Amino acid sequence: MTTHRFFPTRYYTTLGSHEPVLYIADGDTVITTTVDANGHDAAGQIITAEPNPMTGPFFVENAMPGDTLVVHLDSIMPNRTWGWTRDALAANVVNPEYAQTLLSRELAHWYVDAETWTATLNAPPRGLENFAILLAPMLGCFGVAPWDGQAISTVTSAEHGGNMDWNGFTQGVTVYFPVFVPGALFFLGDGHAAQGDGEIVGTGIEISMDTQFTVRVLKNKSDLPIRKIGTVRGENAEFIFAVGNARPLDQALQIATTEMHKWLLSDYGLDTTGASLLMGQCVKYDVANMFDPAYTIVCKMPKRFLNHNNKYEPLF
Amino acid sequence: MTTHRFFPTRYYTTLGSHEPVLYIADGDTVITTTVDANGHDAAGQIITAEPNPMTGPFFVENAMPGDTLVVHLDSIMPNRTWGWTRDALAANVVNPEYAQTLLSRELAHWYVDAETWTATLNAPPRGLENFAILLAPMLGCFGVAPWDGQAISTVTSAEHGGNMDWNGFTQGVTVYFPVFVPGALFFLGDGHAAQGDGEIVGTGIEISMDTQFTVRVLKNKSDLPIRKIGTVRGENAEFIFAVGNARPLDQALQIATTEMHKWLLSDYGLDTTGASLLMGQCVKYDVANMFDPAYTIVCKMPKRFLNHNNKYEPLF
Amino acid sequence: MTTHRFFPTRYYTTLGSHEPVLYIADGDTVITTTVDANGHDAAGQIITAEPNPMTGPFFVENAMPGDTLVVHLDSIMPNRTWGWTRDALAANVVNPEYAQTLLSRELAHWYVDAETWTATLNAPPRGLENFAILLAPMLGCFGVAPWDGQAISTVTSAEHGGNMDWNGFTQGVTVYFPVFVPGALFFLGDGHAAQGDGEIVGTGIEISMDTQFTVRVLKNKSDLPIRKIGTVRGENAEFIFAVGNARPLDQALQIATTEMHKWLLSDYGLDTTGASLLMGQCVKYDVANMFDPAYTIVCKMPKRFLNHNNKYEPLF
Amino acid sequence: MTTHRFFPTRYYTTLGSHEPVLYIADGDTVITTTVDANGHDAAGQIITAEPNPMTGPFFVENAMPGDTLVVHLDSIMPNRTWGWTRDALAANVVNPEYAQTLLSRELAHWYVDAETWTATLNAPPRGLENFAILLAPMLGCFGVAPWDGQAISTVTSAEHGGNMDWNGFTQGVTVYFPVFVPGALFFLGDGHAAQGDGEIVGTGIEISMDTQFTVRVLKNKSDLPIRKIGTVRGENAEFIFAVGNARPLDQALQIATTEMHKWLLSDYGLDTTGASLLMGQCVKYDVANMFDPAYTIVCKMPKRFLNHNNKYEPLF
Repeated sequence: MTTHRFFPTRYYTTLGSHEPVLYIADGDTVITTTVDANGHDAAGQIITAEPNPMTGPFFVENAMPGDTLVVHLDSIMPNRTWGWTRDALAANVVNPEYAQTLLSRELAHWYVDAETWTATLNAPPRGLENFAILLAPMLGCFGVAPWDGQAISTVTSAEHGGNMDWNGFTQGVTVYFPVFVPGALFFLGDGHAAQGDGEIVGTGIEISMDTQFTVRVLKNKSDLPIRKIGTVRGENAEFIFAVGNARPLDQALQIATTEMHKWLLSDYGLDTTGASLLMGQCVKYDVANMFDPAYTIVCKMPKRFLNHNNKYEPLF
Repeated sequence: MTTHRFFPTRYYTTLGSHEPVLYIADGDTVITTTVDANGHDAAGQIITAEPNPMTGPFFVENAMPGDTLVVHLDSIMPNRTWGWTRDALAANVVNPEYAQTLLSRELAHWYVDAETWTATLNAPPRGLENFAILLAPMLGCFGVAPWDGQAISTVTSAEHGGNMDWNGFTQGVTVYFPVFVPGALFFLGDGHAAQGDGEIVGTGIEISMDTQFTVRVLKNKSDLPIRKIGTVRGENAEFIFAVGNARPLDQALQIATTEMHKWLLSDYGLDTTGASLLMGQCVKYDVANMFDPAYTIVCKMPKRFLNHNNKYEPLF
Repeated sequence: MTTHRFFPTRYYTTLGSHEPVLYIADGDTVITTTVDANGHDAAGQIITAEPNPMTGPFFVENAMPGDTLVVHLDSIMPNRTWGWTRDALAANVVNPEYAQTLLSRELAHWYVDAETWTATLNAPPRGLENFAILLAPMLGCFGVAPWDGQAISTVTSAEHGGNMDWNGFTQGVTVYFPVFVPGALFFLGDGHAAQGDGEIVGTGIEISMDTQFTVRVLKNKSDLPIRKIGTVRGENAEFIFAVGNARPLDQALQIATTEMHKWLLSDYGLDTTGASLLMGQCVKYDVANMFDPAYTIVCKMPKRFLNHNNKYEPLF
Repeated sequence: MTTHRFFPTRYYTTLGSHEPVLYIADGDTVITTTVDANGHDAAGQIITAEPNPMTGPFFVENAMPGDTLVVHLDSIMPNRTWGWTRDALAANVVNPEYAQTLLSRELAHWYVDAETWTATLNAPPRGLENFAILLAPMLGCFGVAPWDGQAISTVTSAEHGGNMDWNGFTQGVTVYFPVFVPGALFFLGDGHAAQGDGEIVGTGIEISMDTQFTVRVLKNKSDLPIRKIGTVRGENAEFIFAVGNARPLDQALQIATTEMHKWLLSDYGLDTTGASLLMGQCVKYDVANMFDPAYTIVCKMPKRFLNHNNKYEPLF
C-alpha cells in the first residue's frame, strides 16, 4: 500500500499501449497533477499539446486482460485560480437552424476560488453580474488502454473510458474499468472545476488539478462478482452506475442500461424480470456529454433499493 | 374563479379538435378524474378503450391561437389501491442483441398505499421481497389540440404536449402550452403512481387518479413575456424547464435546449452569449421517456441562477 | 371499372377522416389534378393554403380496416411550365457547424419543358449555365386516413403514407397501403417534376400535376397473401419495395427492412434464414427524404431473385 | 513507376503507425493478396487473427500530412472458390422487437465461380434452390493511418477509411484519402465477392483476394485542387463521391453531404447556391453499411452534371 508522488514530464493525447510512467501495485495510491484540456499547467503555461493531454499511463501490477481495474478518486482539487469555457452552445445540441444564430465561439475566463468554493466569470455579460456557481471538481477524461492494441484519441470515449465528461466523476467516486492489456495502463486528465449536464458549450470550466487516486485489481478468476464487465461502471455514496459511450444518445443509453441490467443479474441476486421491474420504476439517467464524438449517458441505480445480502463488498 | 367538478362520461385517444366537455374561464379550477392507460377507472373497471384515454377536452374561454395556456397541476392523487407495470425492459432501451434475452412482457401488479405513501409488488420476484418505493404521482399524457386541425394519438407527443411520460409532471408544477385552436382544448390522463427515468419498461405504475388543475391564459398581445412559445414549458419550485418531444433522443434534447435558450433571451434579460454561458455550466437534463414514438427530454435551469429583476411574475 | 374525371374544389392539409369528395369502386380509375406544395394550380394561382394541399379523399367502396388498398399510379404529368425549389441545403443534412455557411433560403424557379423532357434553372448561377435535368415526375405526398381517427399533417409521414418524398413514386408504380378506416380515404398531391435523393434542399421541383390512378382492394379475409401489411409497400417493373417513415434514418431503415423480411416470408415462400440470406446480399436502399419530420428509406428487392412459383399475382 | 509483387507475411487488425512492409513511390503499382475477414487465405487456412486482417502498411514516399493519397483499385479478384456470410439479419437493422424472431447466426457457405461469375449457396434453404448472384468483388476495409498517432480497429471506420463495407469499392474505382502521417501508410483487406446494400447480415460474401492497386500523391502545396480533403472521396466512371463514416446514419449522411458540397465549391466552379441547387435535384446516396460501429453513407454526384471546364484532371 505505497503512496507515490508522481510529477509528470510528458503527456499523451491517445489512450493506448504507451510506455508506462510508473509501475504501481494493487492497493497503491498516487498523488499527481493534471494539465487542462489545452495543456496549461498550474502556472498557466502551455507545456504540452492538446487535446486533453493525459497524465500516465500507470502500469498496475497484476492487472491482466479480463480483470477489472478499480480506481477510487481520492481527491480532485484545482491547483490554480482561473479556468476557461467556450461561450456558445455547440451546434449539435440545438435545432439545426437555430445553430446559425449562435455566432462566436470565444473562450470565457472564470475566477476559481477555493476559499469561497465558487467560480465567477471574469467579464460577465448583462444579467450575469452576480452569477456564481459552486465548484464541483471532476475529471473529464480518464481510462485505460483499449482492446486489440488500439490507441484512441482523448477527444472520444468507449468501453475503456476516455473523454466521458460526466460531472458525476468527482472526488469520492469509485470507477471500474475492464482491463484489456497487461498492467491496465491507467491515464487521467481534463479536469473541470464544474460542468453542466451535457457539456453543451463543449467544455466545463477547464482547469489544471492536483489529484490523488487509489487502485485495486479484481481478478477474473476470483470469486468477486464484478468481473468480465462490458464497459465503465462505478459507484458513489448513493448510486451504483453504468456508463454508455456512443453516438447517438440512444445508443449511449442502450449501452448503459444493458450494463446495469447485467450487473443486477450477476451481483445483486435479481433475475431478468426482477432487474427489469426494479430498473423500470427506479432508474435515473444523467446526460453526461452530448458534445464529444461519442456521447455519454450514465444509468444510475439508488443503492437503497439493492439487496444487502448480495455477494458484493465495497472496496472503498 | 369558479371551481368545477367534472365527471367524465367519454374519453378520447387522440388530442384534437373534439367537442368540448366543459367550458371554463381564465382562472378557473377543475376537479375531475382520469382513467389509467388501459381505460380502467377507480373501481378497476375498463370503461373505455386504450391507449391513454383522455379526460376532456376543456375549452378555455379567451384562449386563442398564439396565446399560451398555463395549467397548474393542483393535485394528482391515486384513487384506487392497485396499479400495473410491464415487467421487461423495452427492446429499444437495451443493446439490440441483448433485447433477445428479455423474454416475457407480462403485466406486474402493484399495491399502491396512500397511507404509507408506497408502492409494492404483489408478487415480488427473488431479491425484491422487501422492495417498496415512495409514491410520486404524475400525469403521463396531457396537452392541448395540435396545429392545423390535426388529431394526434395519445401514444405520442409533440409541441402540443401529449404522451411525454416525464416523472417531473407532479402536483405543484405549472405547465405552459402553446395554443393552436380557439379554447386551447385541454386534455389529461395516463396517471402514474411513480415512474423511473426513461419509462424503460414502457409504463410507470399505471393507475386512475383524482386530479385538480387551474388554468390561466397569457395573451399574445399582452406585455407578459411568456408568449409565442415553441413547445411545452413549465416550472416548479426549483427549476424552469423546457420539454423536447421527438425521436431520437438527440433531437428531443436539441428542441428542449433551443427552447430554454430562447426563453432566457426573451424573459430573463440575458443575451445570446450570457444564456449560453449560464446553460453550459448550470443546465440539468432529465430523460423523461425513451419508449413512446416521440422520446422526451427535459432541459431544466435552476431558478436560483436567474435574474430576479426580470419581467416575469409567477402565476402560481 | 369506371373512369372518373374529378375536378377538385377543396383541399386538405391533413390526412384524416374527412368528408369524401368522390366514392369510387374497386377497379375504378380517377383522372384528376393536384396543386403544388404551396397551393399553386396549373394556372400558377394560389388557390389553397400550404403545406402540401391534398386532392381527395376518395372513398373506395368495399375497403375496410384490415384490408389493403392498391393504388396504381397510371400517369403523373406536369400541367404547367414552371416549378420551384429551395436553393440551400437543409441545415439537418450537413454537419451542424457547416450549416452556418449555408445562408439564404430563397426559392429558385425552373422552366419545365415537356417537349424536351427537361428542367432548367431560370437564373442559373455560375457553373450551371448549361445545366439541364431530365424530368422524372413523382408524387411527394399521398396516402390514406391513419389509424384511430387521427388527422396527421401533410408535412410528415407514417404507416398511412403521407409526405414520403421518394423519387421512386413515379408513373407505373403500384403502391400498397394498409386500410385503417372504411373506404380507406385516399389523398394525393405534392407533385415534383424531378427530385434528388434525400430531398436535401427541402423540395423537389415543385409543380402542379395532371394525374391518373387506379385502385384495387385486397380483402383481409381473401386468400391473397398481401394482407395485414404493416406499412407502405409497392412494386415497379424491377423491384418490390417496402417504405419506412420515421426519424432518424436508422429507424426508417429498420421499419423498411422488417417489412420486407415479413413480406418475403408471407408471400415468396422463404423461411427466416432464406429471407435473411437473400436480403443480405441483394437488397438495395434508397434514401427518399431526410428533410421532413419523418425521414423515409425504401428497401428494394429485385424481382429477378424472387421465386416465381409464389402465390402472388400482379394486379397491374 | 515500378510494379511491386508483395507477399504478405504478417497482418494488422488496426490501422495505425505500424512498421511499413514495403516502401513505394508516387505512381507505383502493387500486386498482392488479402485474407478474408476471419483470416483465411487462398488455401482456406486461417493464418492470422480476426477481425479484418490488413495487408500492409505500404509507405508511400513523398506523402506527407496534409497531402492526399490517391489509390486506384486496378484489380480485385477472388483467389479461391468459397466464401461465407452470416445467415440472419443483424439486430440493429430491424425493428427492436422483431430482432427477437431472428434466431440463429450461423455461417452460410457459398460457391464462388469465376467462370460463370456467380455465387451460389452450398446449402440453399427452401425457395433459394436456383438462386445465384453475379460477382461484384469489392474491398470492405482499407485506408490509411489515422491522425494523432491513433491506432484504430479494423472493425470501424472514420476519415482515414477503414471498415466502410461499401459495395461500390470495386475494381476501377479511384479513392482519395487524407494523409495524416509521413508515408500515408496504406492498408487493405476484407474482400467481399458481392454484398447487398447496408451489409445487413453483417457480412458480404467474405473471401480472400488477389488485388492490384496504384498510388499517386497530391501535394498540399501544389495547384491541384483536391487537397485538404476532410474525409474519404473517390470517383468511378459515372460519379464522384464522398464517404461519411459515423453513427447514426444521419451523421454519416451529413458528413458525406458536407464533403461533397465543399468539393463542388473548391474544384467544380460552383458557388454555395449553385452547389446546393445541383445537389438538391441530382445527388444519389448509397447506404454502404449499417452494421459496423461506424455506419457508412456515400454521397454520389453524376459526372455528367459537372462543368467540364474545371481545374480537375483525372489521374486514372
